[in-house]
Parts: sequence; structure tokens; C-alpha cells
Amino acid sequence: MAGGGDWPDGELQRWFREQARAARTEVRVVPLDALRGWHADPGTGDLRHRGGGFFTVTGLAVGSETGPVPRWEQPIISQPEIGVLGLLVRRRAGRVECLIQAKMEPGNINGVQISPTVQATRSNYTRVHGGRATPYLEHFATARPGTVVVDVLQSEQGSWFLGKRNRNMVVEARGPVEERDGFRWVRLDVLHRLMRLDNVVNMDTRTVLSCLASVSPPGPAALPARPAGHGEGNGARDGDGFGALVTASFAPPGRPDGRPDETEIELLSWLTAHRSRQPMTVRPIPGRTVRDWSWTGDEISHRDGRHFSIVGVEVRTGVREVDGWDQPMLVPRGRGVAAFLVRVVGGVLHVLVRAAAQPGLRDAVEIGPTVQCRPENYAHLPAADRPRFLDEVLSAPPERVRYDCVLSEEGGRFYHAENRYLVVEAGDGVPDDPPEDFRWTTLHRLAALTRQGHNVNVEARSLLACLHALSGATP
Amino acid sequence: MAGGGDWPDGELQRWFREQARAARTEVRVVPLDALRGWHADPGTGDLRHRGGGFFTVTGLAVGSETGPVPRWEQPIISQPEIGVLGLLVRRRAGRVECLIQAKMEPGNINGVQISPTVQATRSNYTRVHGGRATPYLEHFATARPGTVVVDVLQSEQGSWFLGKRNRNMVVEARGPVEERDGFRWVRLDVLHRLMRLDNVVNMDTRTVLSCLASVSPPGPAALPARPAGHGEGNGARDGDGFGALVTASFAPPGRPDGRPDETEIELLSWLTAHRSRQPMTVRPIPGRTVRDWSWTGDEISHRDGRHFSIVGVEVRTGVREVDGWDQPMLVPRGRGVAAFLVRVVGGVLHVLVRAAAQPGLRDAVEIGPTVQCRPENYAHLPAADRPRFLDEVLSAPPERVRYDCVLSEEGGRFYHAENRYLVVEAGDGVPDDPPEDFRWTTLHRLAALTRQGHNVNVEARSLLACLHALSGATP
Repeated sequence: MAGGGDWPDGELQRWFREQARAARTEVRVVPLDALRGWHADPGTGDLRHRGGGFFTVTGLAVGSETGPVPRWEQPIISQPEIGVLGLLVRRRAGRVECLIQAKMEPGNINGVQISPTVQATRSNYTRVHGGRATPYLEHFATARPGTVVVDVLQSEQGSWFLGKRNRNMVVEARGPVEERDGFRWVRLDVLHRLMRLDNVVNMDTRTVLSCLASVSPPGPAALPARPAGHGEGNGARDGDGFGALVTASFAPPGRPDGRPDETEIELLSWLTAHRSRQPMTVRPIPGRTVRDWSWTGDEISHRDGRHFSIVGVEVRTGVREVDGWDQPMLVPRGRGVAAFLVRVVGGVLHVLVRAAAQPGLRDAVEIGPTVQCRPENYAHLPAADRPRFLDEVLSAPPERVRYDCVLSEEGGRFYHAENRYLVVEAGDGVPDDPPEDFRWTTLHRLAALTRQGHNVNVEARSLLACLHALSGATP
Repeated sequence: MAGGGDWPDGELQRWFREQARAARTEVRVVPLDALRGWHADPGTGDLRHRGGGFFTVTGLAVGSETGPVPRWEQPIISQPEIGVLGLLVRRRAGRVECLIQAKMEPGNINGVQISPTVQATRSNYTRVHGGRATPYLEHFATARPGTVVVDVLQSEQGSWFLGKRNRNMVVEARGPVEERDGFRWVRLDVLHRLMRLDNVVNMDTRTVLSCLASVSPPGPAALPARPAGHGEGNGARDGDGFGALVTASFAPPGRPDGRPDETEIELLSWLTAHRSRQPMTVRPIPGRTVRDWSWTGDEISHRDGRHFSIVGVEVRTGVREVDGWDQPMLVPRGRGVAAFLVRVVGGVLHVLVRAAAQPGLRDAVEIGPTVQCRPENYAHLPAADRPRFLDEVLSAPPERVRYDCVLSEEGGRFYHAENRYLVVEAGDGVPDDPPEDFRWTTLHRLAALTRQGHNVNVEARSLLACLHALSGATP
């Protein structure tokens, strides 16, 4: 069930390979103190860019009332600016098309991945560091009335970023929009099929698609039915109507007055209760003082080699905003797992979500996947201390695995950061009445909370987009 | 049109007066350095309580890209704990009843006001400072499935509090609940009528009622029609079907599939755009270093006597959690104005909202009233620099003033802090296409954003509750 299957469209695949070739990028890991334009703050050791802006690497002291570890310190990436992740869409012959980009990011394991039309930090698009103008930005900066489909702030990795969020936008193009070099209009259903391949659709695309999954405006509203015949030799398994079940499960339960139903209120209440407990306290600290970490001019790494390290990267390319640059990047140790356990209840697909506390989230707690961890970090612990449901997910028989792909996290800040994303049907051992920090909910309710912003973490949003990509698939 | 009218229920009024008499509280303004249990931090000058917890008074440096003043410094109250504002409701003979409390707060201009069933900081209800148990807390701490009507985190005054928010809850009681001393079941429509009196219904009640206005669960859902015959001699004017118009305008536009309509998306998009601009940067600074403010052992006040001051207050009472206590309080200079301009468009009442940036809001920008200011702070400025639409609101002829009451802000932190709340029909001079930071929206959409939390500021929520209280009123 690994996501190494075929492309849905040979011509598209040729275009993508050509773009990857044209990117011609060299990425080299170098010592932190060799990074041009970056320096360690003499007082704190924090890594800063000469011109300000971009991001800094600093320290965080975390106190956790409820987690397995009561307190720890860690390096963290601070990037308070709000960037734009914007997907331009249009309708052609009754189908939705998306303007995608083949974008090189230095952290991508394969150089180029599919990104949204615009993927730009504020520093990028206001061009404070020089560089070229961001193509198509005008469609998002001054969206005309009636064209906005999605526009909401969403968090990113709460273990690696301090309070980071991006503006997730989907805007419908009015009038013709040309394909510039490196950009291409593709059908939404084709983009969904690309999500069944390993490391092709990047994180920023996935989070935008997760927001789109919940919104049905007059236009791109009518998401077309997916064509039949896939599910063979790639990351998704169907053949028994699972896709149709997913489609039905995204549908609202149908409260005619548009007000929230009781279960929606209870899902929000459960999240509010977890937030109100304030399970984590966080305090910025000077990077150099971070306990249990080695913070040198070479790299920043954990004493026991766990979690992640921060390394220097030298990028030489001809296709980005500037012709080359240096930057620190975060390298996770080992491949992560992010999984939803799912179960059909009353004819509707439910997912088991978790109230996930992460120190970098602005509200400490968001809704996360059933399982989200790097198993290697737990290898030294007894089985009882491994994350709940991890073994259930990893040992599920193939017929219960509905989705299984390796997807990359943000390649602009994370170096070779991969997660194995899984959707697995829960076995009998998974309770209908789960532990207090878990909750069964429908795809519809999860999508409704997603579109409000700041409620669903980025890994759960990726899984939501993966599930949405499965919808409508038929044998 | 001032809110000095009659009580809807003479017996209720007698009970309330009796409670006020029984509270027997002495509140005395004293120098800050005379406060028992409080001290100025030797390093920073910040005011702290001996035991930690409660709150601190510290400093904030604010940079504003878009406001009239590019940078300033100010004292601010930091209270990171999340408290509970909980209203217990039940159904009796087809009507909703609420368990209210006659609660003494030292800052109340009249001692006792109507508060929700539970109004407690986390320090209160976990009893870290001793004191009595919080009555009825168990209904909110462990609400049973199907009983939660509202449960959401909401911000409070963003100019006076740093990142403060409370958990707003409405829970339906199952089984009989006795009225303890100081508590009383009242009909929701009676509570609504009390909102037309000056300084009777406190801020915490208003914010909880604003959330209730948008939610319609199976139970308390069916908010009963208000009885006819009020609107005379109190803070609300009707007589021409305005109440019925309000009721209709709270109704959703009726998108049968439960997904957001285009205009709801655009309202959220407008708010997201204002947030993404990050109009304010805030940085905590030591209190003693705050520029333009005098920070002494006596009080903290602005050089020119504007904005507010921080004073010491000595409270002696027999009815609160402890028998007496000392604390700093914030005293605003002059009475504020918070107003909605409203207009009927297409048979539906619209309100003119504003993207309001305030330094203490966690997300910098929330939806605020059309006008929100303390006019005295602008007395020294030329007319062109006065807040937009302030004169329109204050000079409206009586027949356009639909609501006009003086209501108090939180009496536990603010001393004699009053705002004049107004709902005024817009004259011809108010454009249909307002300046970019204003937006016309319906009551329904405003309520829908309110129930998501962190979108609508506390003054706009008070106005929403006031408007809801007008609904159904007929001549």
C-alpha cells in the first residue's frame, strides 16, 4: 500500500520531471557558523539573519501538567510573520482546476514538489530582501468580492515552530490566467490523485486543500465526482465503496436552520475544556542556555540524538527569488507517523481525533491525529510508555489500511522531514468510548472546525486532505 | 432614552435590593504600596500578589503600523489564567430560565450587579488562595453529554488586559437545582429586559448571553418570544416593529447544506486580511520603565491624565470568597462609548462593524463596534482626528436611537468603568460602502463568528447581547 504508484497523467509527469531537472539546485549541509548572512546573537546564542525578518532559532522552556514529561527545554523556530499560501482555482467544463507550481525547496528530499500558486512569507512578497516579485500574488492581495473561497489563518508544526501560522487562501480566478513557467492548471481530481504518491504534493498544498474540503461556495462549490478506476498500485485502497462512504461522510448532517447541532457543540466544548486546562506553559529562553542540547557553531542537537537537530544549509539555484542563499534548517530524527483511526458508525465514517498539546501552538491545544509521533523517540521507553494506538496503527492488517503514503513537511524550514500518513480502520480493540483526550467525530465536523482556523493542527489537516482525496473513488 | 426605566418584576427588584443591602461592602481607594499581599517587584516595578496567581500589572510597548499613534507604552493587566463564566439554564413551561447571581464586585458603581451562575478565575475555583468553594461549579466542570449549549473561549478588554480570555459556558441543568442564597432562577426574557436598565446586568453575563444568541440546540434552543408591552421609559425604543425586525435578522439566510454562504466567507476573509497585516507589535516591558506614565507607590497614571490609572483598593465584605482583600484596580478616565450603527438592507438589519486592533488581543484584531472610544481622550484633538462615526452616533436624533444604556465593565478588575452602549440607525451620511476597516454585516453572521470564539471583542459582544435582548419586542 506504499505510495509509489503511477501518475494519473503521463504528460503531467513529464512536465513535473522537466521542472525538477530545470531546478538544478545544489543543497549542501554546512556548519551553522559558515552561513552567510546569519550569526549567533552574542548574548543569547539565538541564530538570526542579518537583516532581521525571515526567522530566528531560539530556545523555549516548556512546563507540561499532563504530558509524560513534566518539563523540558528545546530549540524552536520563531517566525512571527504571517505568509500567504494561496491556491488559484477556476472552473472549466464543470470541473475545478487549480493552478499548481512545481516548486523547489531546499529541504525537499526530491528537490521539487507540487505547491500552491503562491507560497510566500511576508518578507518574500514584500521583497524586503530583494528578489523577484511573487507571481500571481495580486490575485490574493486584492481578491475581488465573490472570488474568495477560503481565507483563514492556520497553525503549523507546534513542536518546531513558535506561534507560526499562515494565511490559507483559495481564490477563484476571473478572466484568463496564463500559465507562467513552472506553473500549470490541473484538475482538482488529478491533484487529489497525486496525493496518493509519496513526496509529490507538499504540505502547503495539503493544508490549503484541507480548508477547501469544508467549503462549498457557489462556484468551485460543486466539486466534481472523482473518476473511477484508481486505487491500484498506489497509496490508496478502495474497491469496496470506501470512497463513496468518505464522500457521504463529508456531507453535513443537515440541520436546516444552519445552527450547530448538539454534537458539533460538544466537539468544540471538548476542545475548549482541554484548552482551558492550559496544559502547557511556555517561556522563551536564550538558545545557548537550552538544557540537554548541544548548541555549537557547528550544529544544534539533542544530547541523546533524539528529536531533531538544527544544521546549516547552503543553497545554490537559479530559479528562486534570489540565486542562492544560506539558512539554518531543522532535521528531524527518523520518519514520523501521523495516522487517523476510522470507523463506520451509523453509516457515517468517523475519525478518532486527539486533543494535542504542542508548545508552539498559540492556543496550546489543537485537534490532532489519533497518532502523531516519531517512533524512534520512544524506542528507549517500555511499551506501556509508547503513544496510545501507535501499535494498533502500525500492526494493522493490509485490508484495514485505507491510505498509506510518505509525505514531506515544509521544505523551506525542515530538511528531509517525512511523515508516514495513514488512514486505518480501527479494529475491535479500539474502544467506542475512548480515553478522555480522544474523541470520535465525523469528517464533516472536523472539516467545519478546520475552516474556522486555529482548531486543527497541520498533521490532522494533511490527513483530512488525504481523506478528501479519497472521496468519490469507486472500484 | 436613558436606561433608568422600571424593573420588569417588582418582586425581583425587591430581592435584588435586599441582596445589595446584604452585601454591606466597603471599598476604599488606598495607595498601591499600602495593599496587603501585594508588592512592586524590586527589579521591574510590576505589581504582583505575594502568592503568585491572580494577576500582575506590568508594562507593554506597542508599535502600530496603521493607527493614528505609531508607538506608545502603557501599563497593562496580565492575567493568563482562563476562568469560567458559566450560566446554568433550564426549561420551565416552554420558557428558558437562567440561574443568576446578585454578585458584589468592588469596582461596581452600585456594589451588586447580576452575574452568571459561576464567575470565577481559575485561582478562585481551584481555591489556591483559600476561600469558599465556588457554588454550582460542578455543573460546568463536568457537564454531562447533551447538556452543553455554549462552551467557547472569548477575549476581554484588549486595551486593558494582556491576552486575557475566559471560558464562556451555558449548560442546561438536568434535575432540580436549588436556589442558594444570592442566586435566583429568572426567565431569559426577564433577564433581557434587565439589560435595558443602567448598570444592572454585568459584563460577564452579557458576554455569555452574546454566545447564547447564536446557538440553538435542541433544548434551550427554542428561545421564547418576548412578551409585548415594554420599550417604555427604559433604555430601548420600539413601537414600530423594530424588535420583530431584530428577530428576523438573527435568522440564518438558510443555506440548506449547512455550509457557509459567500458573504460569511467574505466577512471572515476581511477579518483574516486585517489580522494578516499584523497591525500591532507588542513587547512586554518592565512596568517602571513605561514612558509617559508616572509609576509610583501611590498610583500609576498617565502624564496628561488620559486613558486610565491604576489605584489600590481595600475591600471589606462578608459575602465573598474571603472576608476582605486588597487589590490594584484600573480606573478609566471618563465614560466610554460603544455603539453599533445599524441599517435595514433588503429587509434585514445590518450592523456596521469595525476591524478593531487592540494590543492585548491575542490575535491583535477582532471585530469591534462601529465606535468604541473614550471621547475624553480625543478632546484635545482636532475634529478630523476624532474617531470615525463618533459624531454621527452622539448627535443622532432620538427617533434613530434604538438602545441607549450605561453598562459597567468587569467590576473585579475595573473601578467604576462605565460605557454608554448605543444602537443607532445610520443616517444618510453613513455610506453603504464604508471605509476599508468597516464592514456591514447581518446579526446572524456576527453571531456565527461570535460562537467560534476569539473573533468578536467584548464590547461588540455586549452590543450583540443588547440587540438580542431587543428581539421580539413589539409595541
